[in-house]
Amino acid sequence: MINIVKVGGGIIENEEDLSTFLTSFSKIPGKKILIHGGGRLATKFAAQLGIKTNMIEGRRVTDDAMLDVVTMVYGGLANKKIVAALQANKINALGLSGADGNIIKAHKRVVKEVDYGWVGDIDEINTGLILTLLDNNIVPVIAPLSHDGKGKILNTNADTIASAVASAISIKRETQLVLGFELDGVLVDPKEKTSVITKITPQLFEDYKKSKVITDGMIPKLENAFAAISSGVSAVKICNALKISEAITEHNVGTTITSD
Amino acid sequence: MINIVKVGGGIIENEEDLSTFLTSFSKIPGKKILIHGGGRLATKFAAQLGIKTNMIEGRRVTDDAMLDVVTMVYGGLANKKIVAALQANKINALGLSGADGNIIKAHKRVVKEVDYGWVGDIDEINTGLILTLLDNNIVPVIAPLSHDGKGKILNTNADTIASAVASAISIKRETQLVLGFELDGVLVDPKEKTSVITKITPQLFEDYKKSKVITDGMIPKLENAFAAISSGVSAVKICNALKISEAITEHNVGTTITSD
Repeated sequence: MINIVKVGGGIIENEEDLSTFLTSFSKIPGKKILIHGGGRLATKFAAQLGIKTNMIEGRRVTDDAMLDVVTMVYGGLANKKIVAALQANKINALGLSGADGNIIKAHKRVVKEVDYGWVGDIDEINTGLILTLLDNNIVPVIAPLSHDGKGKILNTNADTIASAVASAISIKRETQLVLGFELDGVLVDPKEKTSVITKITPQLFEDYKKSKVITDGMIPKLENAFAAISSGVSAVKICNALKISEAITEHNVGTTITSD
Repeated sequence: MINIVKVGGGIIENEEDLSTFLTSFSKIPGKKILIHGGGRLATKFAAQLGIKTNMIEGRRVTDDAMLDVVTMVYGGLANKKIVAALQANKINALGLSGADGNIIKAHKRVVKEVDYGWVGDIDEINTGLILTLLDNNIVPVIAPLSHDGKGKILNTNADTIASAVASAISIKRETQLVLGFELDGVLVDPKEKTSVITKITPQLFEDYKKSKVITDGMIPKLENAFAAISSGVSAVKICNALKISEAITEHNVGTTITSD
């Protein structure tokens, strides 16, 4: 089983949380891949550089200046800090953007109602290199950046990358997708941190959306989870990033997404 | 023969020059490694972030804020732009900092007269991973960052890294170190761009230093070149980055550093 773990920008931004997460991540047994965000850090550095952040439906509009910011923050600052910290934990991590080794080929999102700018929709995951690294006991750490093969880096959502990587690898190996964030799982009541929904099926997802229990950023997260399961991923866990190894080794921790 | 090519910050900063360099680099026959700088870009972004750049003897003093800047600019912006552009040239490039795959282990420079801050002096190059990548037709693109194995990224001069990588690999394979910059080679007269010194031996180096023909930033560059030759590198070329493939394939282009 290969665990493909995604951790979001809220954890990355906070040094103490990041350290706790990485210690837990390091304890995950077997082969593993880390895909990280960094949105909040990008927003912070953009502001310091006088660049305004524009989000539409939870997605970052990426003009030329913002592309430089996300390339720096995701591919540089966040990725290298994580890799160095994992090395200190005796995990032989290796950071990658989608351009590195051509692992994530994408195309610039076609403009419909909204022009997201330099945002990439994934065409292909090069699993060969990822599996070669894993088989050499290297832990790939993937920044949420793809490339178009024509020289352009593109900004791609980390959840989408995690889902696509897990799906692509599931053709060759058994995979589990693990989405770590600030909460203990998907909650019935956002004010009640222990109200974790243990299991979500496609039917329950529809019901929760209709009743507005599941809203906003959680919707694309769950859509990605179901897409991953449809394309061969064995299981998806949504759980607290700070307890990521427990969520993987224990069955009653976090929210499990299943097809039935 | 493995060509280990270093390109400096002056080329990286200028998009047109960078593109010309990368086109030429892509034409180098056989196995190759690229080590890049990015100092001018770091200075530019630091200024935009309100962080002052402090250089002592051509080396950047790296406090906490500057470490974030160089991690972002070297490991993110410069490295990923180069990798994406090489992918467009059908070169399967893969960007690395010294923390990635633990390829460059260093320690924080001991404070003597000057406290350079988070600057790393190299202890060890992990050639195993670099050779594995080369043997898989991957071109490593190395940012001038090392790590201390205790979780800290360190700022390390790109010339020093290029020299250390070439020396370490020369134990196992034949290597040539190629230092590309803005000029056609080491010049007798800085005002006369064609006054290239074709060959420099250790004795000539001492003479040129005494007569002030060779000064400033060129001194550590040549010291690194001689150190590389002493430790097994077959040849060192100092040449125009925009004509890097000619300098490698033709004998009368650039400055050649030899032991005698």
